[in-house]
Amino acid sequence: MGKIEEIIQNIVGIDYNFINKAQNKLNNLTKPLGSLGVLEDLAKQIVGITEKGNPELKNKVIFTLAGDHGVTEEGVSAYPKEVTAQMVYNFLNGGAGINVLANHIGARVVVVDMGVAEQIPNPNDQIPSKSQIPMTKFILKKINLGTKNMAIGPAMTKEEAIKSIECGIEIFEDELKNGIDIIGIGEMGIGNTTSASAITACFTGASVEDITGRGTGIDDRGLKNKIEIIKKALEINKPNPDDAIDVLSKVGGFEIGGLVGIIFAAALHKVPVLIDGFISGSAALIAYKLEPKVKDYMIASHCSVERGHKIILEHIGLRPLLNLDLRLGEGTGAALGINLAEAALKILTQMATFDSAGVSNKTI
Amino acid sequence: MGKIEEIIQNIVGIDYNFINKAQNKLNNLTKPLGSLGVLEDLAKQIVGITEKGNPELKNKVIFTLAGDHGVTEEGVSAYPKEVTAQMVYNFLNGGAGINVLANHIGARVVVVDMGVAEQIPNPNDQIPSKSQIPMTKFILKKINLGTKNMAIGPAMTKEEAIKSIECGIEIFEDELKNGIDIIGIGEMGIGNTTSASAITACFTGASVEDITGRGTGIDDRGLKNKIEIIKKALEINKPNPDDAIDVLSKVGGFEIGGLVGIIFAAALHKVPVLIDGFISGSAALIAYKLEPKVKDYMIASHCSVERGHKIILEHIGLRPLLNLDLRLGEGTGAALGINLAEAALKILTQMATFDSAGVSNKTI
Repeated sequence: MGKIEEIIQNIVGIDYNFINKAQNKLNNLTKPLGSLGVLEDLAKQIVGITEKGNPELKNKVIFTLAGDHGVTEEGVSAYPKEVTAQMVYNFLNGGAGINVLANHIGARVVVVDMGVAEQIPNPNDQIPSKSQIPMTKFILKKINLGTKNMAIGPAMTKEEAIKSIECGIEIFEDELKNGIDIIGIGEMGIGNTTSASAITACFTGASVEDITGRGTGIDDRGLKNKIEIIKKALEINKPNPDDAIDVLSKVGGFEIGGLVGIIFAAALHKVPVLIDGFISGSAALIAYKLEPKVKDYMIASHCSVERGHKIILEHIGLRPLLNLDLRLGEGTGAALGINLAEAALKILTQMATFDSAGVSNKTI
Repeated sequence: MGKIEEIIQNIVGIDYNFINKAQNKLNNLTKPLGSLGVLEDLAKQIVGITEKGNPELKNKVIFTLAGDHGVTEEGVSAYPKEVTAQMVYNFLNGGAGINVLANHIGARVVVVDMGVAEQIPNPNDQIPSKSQIPMTKFILKKINLGTKNMAIGPAMTKEEAIKSIECGIEIFEDELKNGIDIIGIGEMGIGNTTSASAITACFTGASVEDITGRGTGIDDRGLKNKIEIIKKALEINKPNPDDAIDVLSKVGGFEIGGLVGIIFAAALHKVPVLIDGFISGSAALIAYKLEPKVKDYMIASHCSVERGHKIILEHIGLRPLLNLDLRLGEGTGAALGINLAEAALKILTQMATFDSAGVSNKTI
């Protein structure tokens, strides 16, 4: 854990002087005090994170990490596991939900193979350039060809868990060279709501029934089976909630570990992180358990239909920006959240003040 | 009511064939069925409204209608009534919240003087062109120099109420010549939450206490006074909830009447309408009472901090897209809602299908 510990030690909480300055600025804009609600909170948080009075979001990046899950052997998902690789190709062709929404908000998409179960040929050569959305990039950081079946034993070794987090840090720091002002984190991996549910149950103490949802759309029988498999995985592996690396290795996923690393790197480099849905939330939970200061850098973009997500957000203490019944993942909700963050910063930096506009201020 | 009745008679409900076609299209996109939740509902509604399979939102317009309220004599607002006119200038200079958010989403802003209490010189000549946001336009439709004090008698005559709605229709139809694909409706008027509360109490039967909020930010004493004034206005004027024009004339406002007209014209011309906050909501309520079919064309952008807004949305049966504790008005929430509508349509029209992307579909 050398590299991870070193990063964690250098993460500091937000400096409230910057937040206070942003508050003063907001108070002088031509609108009733506080009347832009959560947008004002967002603007303040981003000023606090970036330590810039007038932050601009020129470089927006969505990291979409993909990985396969051995637990799909247990029939926990409505889709075959081949879909993980197929969706990676879809991302690179610009046809997925995240491509469309990233394009809508002007963000780049960095697609990472953290552990897809099949070898993906170097897609920068192979993929025909029929993409409508050019700002998509592929990075290969394959830890292994999918995790092992956590219903039988640990999903991965401790070394793999640490390596997945370290890869996340590298991914962020490599991309930082191209400029990053804000990020969204998302994922793709058939079977990964099963993993996220196990992580959430382990850390929050909530019952498996209360934090398990239908994922991509299993029926009642599938849901019952999924709950049983998660319980079995927890019983067999006994992940230790006081050791987040242990939890990640026993019931996690490579893409989840990668997202943990990205969160740490973003916090170290003072970049706001929009958390997407339930699986990204489970990564946020692991990061938070390893270092609670990362919470200052997190913005919850939305609350997923997946039941466990709300419990994660409450556990960390994050209020979601959106409640749109999303459950796609990929970073789609995070993209919409980045757009709100940009709107919030424009309010802070582009509105007139009472003085400059000659508008009378409050009288009572 | 000749012109208004003629329009109302020509408003038809949504054709569900279009919604079904959009549903089929959404079901074939590379994502779990229904996994984009409210975004999918939005896309379907807009296809249904516009009767276009692939609607594009090239021309987005925010109508921000301004009017003064005689009831400000009773000390119901935290800001002096001069602010209404001052904010109109601020809109035209591009310094207000709505300018910033309209610019963010690529919308034009049409500012209308429906009844500001002072004469606003033709600002297209007078206003120095220091605007950062050029897409702002001014229209003069002044019904009168503010409404009368509704705590003493009717806010306006029945003729003025009808004229304000007719002006709204004209405003929309004039702007339609420049192209309109979607609109947001907002307002500015010191004292107009008092009017919106009275309208809401009258139609929904909710108690004045339950639908009266702090507006721009009055204190406890101010809130108590505001509640008393609203009760007095309702007692003195006895607006008839079965006659929406009577309600508008007795306790409404010119900007509210104008918004009613815009809603009718949008529904007639099959254009989706993003409703902003509490005051826009009160206009939506009047429009809905005059012709319930307009509901099909309404999209509730957000739920305001103003308590009465939630009651309006429940009464009409609209689910708000956003819950961001906004209470600024001007169309700010509507602008954010338009952005989500655009994202939703891009999902519908730009994502790959399972077939085109070679992605396996659901197995169980």
